[in-house]
Amino acid sequence: MTVRRGKFITLEGSEGVGKSTNLVFITEWLQRRGIDFVQTREPGGTPLAEQLRELLLQRREEAVDPTAELLLIFAARAQHLRQLILPALAEGKWVICDRFTDATYAYQGGGRRLDQQQIEQLEQMVQGELRPDKIFLLDLDPHIGLQRAANTGTPDRFEKEQLAFFQRVRAAYHQRSKQQLENYVLIDASEPLPKVQKQLATELENILVESAAE
Amino acid sequence: MTVRRGKFITLEGSEGVGKSTNLVFITEWLQRRGIDFVQTREPGGTPLAEQLRELLLQRREEAVDPTAELLLIFAARAQHLRQLILPALAEGKWVICDRFTDATYAYQGGGRRLDQQQIEQLEQMVQGELRPDKIFLLDLDPHIGLQRAANTGTPDRFEKEQLAFFQRVRAAYHQRSKQQLENYVLIDASEPLPKVQKQLATELENILVESAAE
Repeated sequence: MTVRRGKFITLEGSEGVGKSTNLVFITEWLQRRGIDFVQTREPGGTPLAEQLRELLLQRREEAVDPTAELLLIFAARAQHLRQLILPALAEGKWVICDRFTDATYAYQGGGRRLDQQQIEQLEQMVQGELRPDKIFLLDLDPHIGLQRAANTGTPDRFEKEQLAFFQRVRAAYHQRSKQQLENYVLIDASEPLPKVQKQLATELENILVESAAE
Repeated sequence: MTVRRGKFITLEGSEGVGKSTNLVFITEWLQRRGIDFVQTREPGGTPLAEQLRELLLQRREEAVDPTAELLLIFAARAQHLRQLILPALAEGKWVICDRFTDATYAYQGGGRRLDQQQIEQLEQMVQGELRPDKIFLLDLDPHIGLQRAANTGTPDRFEKEQLAFFQRVRAAYHQRSKQQLENYVLIDASEPLPKVQKQLATELENILVESAAE
């Protein structure tokens, strides 16, 4: 018997958009439906990739070269894909991932202004044809997001960036969502949480129905 | 006044070929000539790149995906280049580096059998047109090299590879040296040390003379 490949769903968005809260909502929804899934995150997801996450987020005296940062992120991604994501999908599990390659286009492409072609080259090298089945983008004006995020401890190397950086991140996410209308679900994270989660539930239901029909 | 760019010299070779001993010889030779230089190594050379070296060499339970390994090496290289090598060369210092991108072609390309085109893509992304001015390759049958290296403590994640791996590494170094006759100095490391070092001294003298004539 062939196992039906699991669905690969990523949650994207900048600081303070409510990713953590909505990840809990998504995983509880899947549990209620009896769907076997793995929850993971980027950068991270395996022991080596989590060590790389630590190096990436640490604030440090040394300026980090943007290309070095980009390569580290894809190194962690290669490890995460081969060790965790691809095996889980092959076993029929759904994979719910807190950020993935769209975050690289947003943070390193938009935020750090790295050449988009470099990101595309690395995406091709590491992922081949693999893309998320659905990308939930929690969208919010960074003015509001940064205020919300300001209450949650010492900012890491990314969180300490300025407003203009996060405005470029948001613009890059918007651009991605327009280029990939089929895969993106744009969610207005300024709406009240029940409305956000109603939209999430509707979209999850759609994915489940489509999956059953495959 | 324009500062004349320093020379970028790398020392390459597999386990037990005598790199450490000959690095000392090279740096002492440069000191005697009053040449301002920086001695460094790959992976490594900056605080972040040394942390990556540690992650790369650590023996670990988790299998390391070869593409993740390749990307980590180039991440460390990007950091090393921008933070240390390029600024030193621009100040007119010579840079003496224990392994560089030729080691990636040898270990990841030859040893791990990764696609050479991937390595070329990353070399282009990280280095642009930068290549070493001279590559000293200490060449030795890995049968002998591994015997020599066996006496120097617990092997790391690369040193614990088998003979066939190091034979592929050596073959890849040979191939590189044939493709880049102008930059490579092939040194027979099975010869007595005085003979090896006489060859090194002659080649260093040549580089110095050429440099003065530029």
